[in-house]
Order: sequence, then C-alpha cells, then structure tokens
Amino acid sequence: MIYLDYVSTTPLNNEVKENYFKLLNEYFANGDSLYRLGMKTSAMQEKSRSLLAEMLHVKDQELIFTSGASEANNMAIKGTAFYYQNRGKHIITTCLEHSSVYNACLELRDYFGYDVDFIGLDKNNHLDYDALANSIREDTVLVSVMYVNNEVGFINDLHKISEIVRQKNPKTKIHFDCVQALAKLPVDLSLCDLASFSAHKINGLKGSGLLYKKSNCNLLPVINGGQQEQGLRGGTSNTAVNTMFAKTLRLGLQDMEKHYDYVKSINEYVKDELKNQVYILSDETCSPYILSLSIPHYKPEVILHYLEDKDIYISTKSTCSSHKDAPSHTIEAMNIDDIVKKSVIRVSFSASTTKQEVDLFIKELKNAMKELKQEK
Amino acid sequence: MIYLDYVSTTPLNNEVKENYFKLLNEYFANGDSLYRLGMKTSAMQEKSRSLLAEMLHVKDQELIFTSGASEANNMAIKGTAFYYQNRGKHIITTCLEHSSVYNACLELRDYFGYDVDFIGLDKNNHLDYDALANSIREDTVLVSVMYVNNEVGFINDLHKISEIVRQKNPKTKIHFDCVQALAKLPVDLSLCDLASFSAHKINGLKGSGLLYKKSNCNLLPVINGGQQEQGLRGGTSNTAVNTMFAKTLRLGLQDMEKHYDYVKSINEYVKDELKNQVYILSDETCSPYILSLSIPHYKPEVILHYLEDKDIYISTKSTCSSHKDAPSHTIEAMNIDDIVKKSVIRVSFSASTTKQEVDLFIKELKNAMKELKQEK
Repeated sequence: MIYLDYVSTTPLNNEVKENYFKLLNEYFANGDSLYRLGMKTSAMQEKSRSLLAEMLHVKDQELIFTSGASEANNMAIKGTAFYYQNRGKHIITTCLEHSSVYNACLELRDYFGYDVDFIGLDKNNHLDYDALANSIREDTVLVSVMYVNNEVGFINDLHKISEIVRQKNPKTKIHFDCVQALAKLPVDLSLCDLASFSAHKINGLKGSGLLYKKSNCNLLPVINGGQQEQGLRGGTSNTAVNTMFAKTLRLGLQDMEKHYDYVKSINEYVKDELKNQVYILSDETCSPYILSLSIPHYKPEVILHYLEDKDIYISTKSTCSSHKDAPSHTIEAMNIDDIVKKSVIRVSFSASTTKQEVDLFIKELKNAMKELKQEK
Repeated sequence: MIYLDYVSTTPLNNEVKENYFKLLNEYFANGDSLYRLGMKTSAMQEKSRSLLAEMLHVKDQELIFTSGASEANNMAIKGTAFYYQNRGKHIITTCLEHSSVYNACLELRDYFGYDVDFIGLDKNNHLDYDALANSIREDTVLVSVMYVNNEVGFINDLHKISEIVRQKNPKTKIHFDCVQALAKLPVDLSLCDLASFSAHKINGLKGSGLLYKKSNCNLLPVINGGQQEQGLRGGTSNTAVNTMFAKTLRLGLQDMEKHYDYVKSINEYVKDELKNQVYILSDETCSPYILSLSIPHYKPEVILHYLEDKDIYISTKSTCSSHKDAPSHTIEAMNIDDIVKKSVIRVSFSASTTKQEVDLFIKELKNAMKELKQEK
C-alpha cells in the first residue's frame, strides 16, 4: 500500500497504541472519582496535560481536552462569540478554512445574527492581509484563521495576522486552527488567544483533540456538564485517550526539522517530475506536506480510483467534504482557471513516505493520464 | 477490589476490548475517504449503526454517533432549542437531571433568553407530573427528562410524560436522557423525539455516545463540520469506537431481565441489612442498580475514604459534580431532613456484583459507623 493521504488521517503510532492498550487493560475508573482508583487515571491525564503545556509553552490550565479538532474549533468560535456577544457580533474568518470553522461561522451568521467576513486571496493566491486589516471593526470579537490550509497547504503568516489584529483592535480574540501545522511547523501560541489541535493527524488516536485557551480569554461551553476541564467541557474524561496525547506530540516533535526538510525534498521531487504534465496549485510557500495538483480535463474521482486500483491512496479534496460535487471553497477562492478548479487532486506526505513510493505514484499518475479518457 | 460505583463508569468488556484492539491494529483510514480503504472503516461503522437501530427499534438514520452522552444531551437540548427558537423559547426540565442537561438549560436561560422551568418532586419524592402538565405552554419547544436518575435511581414514568406533553402541546419535542436505563430497563423510543445514550456506562468505551433523533425532529449542530453524521456532527468519524457500540449494546442486552432481577435481589439484601442503621433514599420504585443511603452525622467523604482503605469503592454523589461541597440539586429537591441530605453516599451494582462483595461492604460500612467520629 502506498498511502499518500496523511492530511486526512495517519496510521496510529505503535508506541502510542501499545501504551493505550495497556491503559485500557489496567485502568477504567472515572477520573473524577474521589477515590484513588479514579485519582490515578486523572493523575495520568493531568501529567499528559502538563507535558503538552510544556511542549506548547503554555500553562497547564490553558489546555482543554476535546473529542477532536472540530470540537475545539467550534468551542473556540462559538464559545467566544457567545461569551462576548455583548461586546459585538462581528467575526472575521477566511475562505480557506476547514468545514468545522467555516460552518460554525455560517451557523453564527444564519441563526444568531452575527456578521461574518470571509477574507479571500490576493492576486498571488495568498491570504489578503490588507482586506483583513480593513475588515477589523470596533465590534469584531473574533478572528479565526488556520495556520496551514488542509487542501493546498497555504501557510498563513500568523505573526502578521496577530500584529494586524492587535494593532487594530486589542480586544479582538484571535483563534488559529493549527491542525495541519502541529509537529510540522513551529507553533507560537503567544500570537493568539485560542488554538486547535488534533491527535489523529500526527499518528495519534481519533477522538482526541486539544483547545488552547489563554487564561484571560473566556468562553461559553459548547458541551455543558460537570466539573471536567474547568467546567468548560462536560462529559466523563476520556482519560486513556487524553493521556496518550502527550506521547503522541512528543513523538511528533522528535526530529521535526529533519522530517520537514526530508518531506520538502520529496515534495520538490514530485513537483519536478510532474510539472510539465499537471497544474501545480501548491506553490513554494506552501507546506511541503501537502501537494495540490490539477490535471485539467480529467475527473479527479476517476484518477483517485485508478490509483486506488494500484494500491495508491490519495484524495480529491478535504475528506470532511469529500462527498460534495462542487470544488471546495478554498479552491473556488483561488485565482485560477475554472477548468483547473474542476480537476484537483491532493497528495500528502509524511516522514515515512519513501522515494520508491512517490516514484510509483508518479508512474501510475502518468499512466492514468495516458489510459483514462479525457472529459470534454 | 470491590467496585460498587457502576453508575459512574464500568470496566471495559473483554470482548469489546479485544475487538477494538483488532480494529485499531488493522484499520486507520478516514471513514469519509472515497477509496475502499476508508469505505471499509465506514462500512463497519454503518453496520454498527444499523445493528444499534435494530436493537433500539428505530431507523438507522435516526442515530447519531457522539463523543459521549454529555455531548448527546447538549445536542438534543441546545440543538432543538436553537433550531426551533422562532417557535418559542420555553424549556421544561427537572431538578433531577445530570449536569450536562441541567447546565445546558442554565446556559440557555442565562445567555440566550430562554425561560426554563425545573420540575420538582411531589411529597412522595416522585416527579411532580401535575406541575409538568401545568408548565407546558404554547411556546414550550422542549421537555427534557431523564429516564433513570443517576444519584438516587428514581425511574420516571416516560409513558406518562409523553402522554402529558403530547396532549398539552403536540409540537413540543421530548428528550429522554436514557444513560442509566440502557441495558437495564426496556427503552421505548416511540415515546420521545430525542434520547441520549453512553457506552462506558454499559461496559463499553469512554468517548462513545449516541443520540437518537426522530426523523421529523430537527436540530442545529452543536459541533459543525463536514458531511459526517448527516452534517449534524462534524469531525473525523471515530469509526473504531463507533463500530464497538453495537457489540457493547448487544452484550448489555443479553439476559437483561435476568440481570435486573439478580441486581434487585442484591439491592434488597443490602437495604435489609442496613435499614436499621442508615437512612435509605432510594425507595422500592427506584432502579435496583442504584442505592442512595444517608448516614446522618457522618461526612460522606470520610466514609468513602474509610471504605477505600478496605479496597471498596463507592461514591458520594454524581461523579461529574463530585468536587462540589454542597448537596446535589437532586438531593436538595427531596423532601427529607437537611441532616439527611448532608450525609449521602451512593452505592451501585452490576450483574457481576457478588453477595460476598456486598457482605464485605455491609460489614465495613458498619465498622465505619463504629470507628469514625460523628460530626456535631
């Protein structure tokens, strides 16, 4: 199997898996119990929180365990929007966001009377920072921008965004969706008030997310409940899963730069081999982990299935919106021909991707272009 | 170890665990991928949904996988409250509810202008059905009541509630929190529009919940995202966890009546042995799985720790609110002496609880009363 869809999800790391199995075998008590049996499970979870805080350079109590990044994104966006509703009802996000951010903002707009601006791309297909600056108002409660885009790999300039927002309106909260950046790029949480992370994108468990929330930033719980997570996220703590996030991140951060350079070389090699035959959407400023290509006049699903028959797995766009027919809002926002937009495929790499694997992918993609019928 | 806190959480069933490990070892692809690798994981999840639907006598598409019952409760309550906000902003719930229901209603009241009625208990400490009937208004969008109370074990009459609500206002949606009833009592979902379930209370995995939502009932997503769960719950599907819920419930339903009768005999035995020395809050109409006792003039935490030293595990109240000092709102609502309210402990049983175990518990509880200092 040649798996080239690491942006969608990743195989579970063996060390994480073995440790997780051990936890499930040995501990089951409710972490909120008053007896030691429960305290032991909660101590492991809190140790994990502490290690995560250390690795992310934040305080323990600034990290909230969630069931995933989509939940973390919703908490960040709706939580602050609702908490600060008396301060204003204007939110700024971008046309590049993951569906969990995009649709949370649409819900706020369509059902709760919020004004939402979606910042687009400039002529170079980079986030339009001038438009962002001009959109910030007195009543802007939140700016939510992703760090690394999940479809094309755009890397947004978080320093610039932070500077713009803080200069224009220091009261505006800043949220960064860091899912595709974690363990791939340095993450500086001093630039924001809220940030979202996922474990299963970095060889961790599914159903495992993390929300960073700066101490002086407040939010209304999306999932009310008991005392868990400082009363901000109810439900019996998934202590075994939460405990494994620290190990997942530690393993992910090991050799991060080395892995980045390696993946960059793989990415450049693939681009080089294909550049004469395909349209490359991910430019040199994008994350090397993601490569978005278009093969005009070919249906992307047909290419996906052709490759699948050769045991090669890629995707067409964000997996969370894979069942929709239209181009995604990210692709739609790009200044490229409509014909290019219609034939986008996404390839994504990891440090374990080998040259042999991408060679086979390149070969079979070229075969696909020869063998498959072009659309009119 | 003598574990008597099954209401808080349960040990993971071995068969569920082994199968879950197998899934984690063999499958990792994103269930929403368009290739077969992903389709296989989603097919397993959908098979589970289908089996769950069969066991609960509902349609497949009426079941939504969540990260737990607290999330399911929040989805049911906020989801419908927000969706039907133009129809009315009145909600009815009870003083017996789990914190995820109680606090979700408080949030709607305090931040979104909803009117919330909390139905209390009658003089017999049963839900005040007359008060419920009298509270239903033209603008009542939701009535949320738990099936089995998690602290004292009250069993609410769902037939009666359903009849009252449907007769008074057929447009009002009915939500039942069935967490402590699943695999213990028959659950008839034709009586409601929404119902919540948890896996870890019936020897399943933590981070695993289920929301039943009748086809003609709508809700606004609490966690927006992609196409997962009909667009009602975003986030990469936790396919392995969701797949295991069907087996968890199937095992739970096996010999349900036999287990009920057995637990009832255990419960009655304990009551009989203790009735002269303690105050019993759970009357004969309560679920036999839960036994709430009060030992006036003793601090419940001190008893808990005394028993813990003998390797016996019980709780003082709902684990989700265990760190609060005051009596819970359920205990507070009961027509009992304040002195009784202050010294409540909760014992809960399962089909695997043995007579030897409860004998030891009884013995040590009596020792505790002899050895521990009474409070003034």
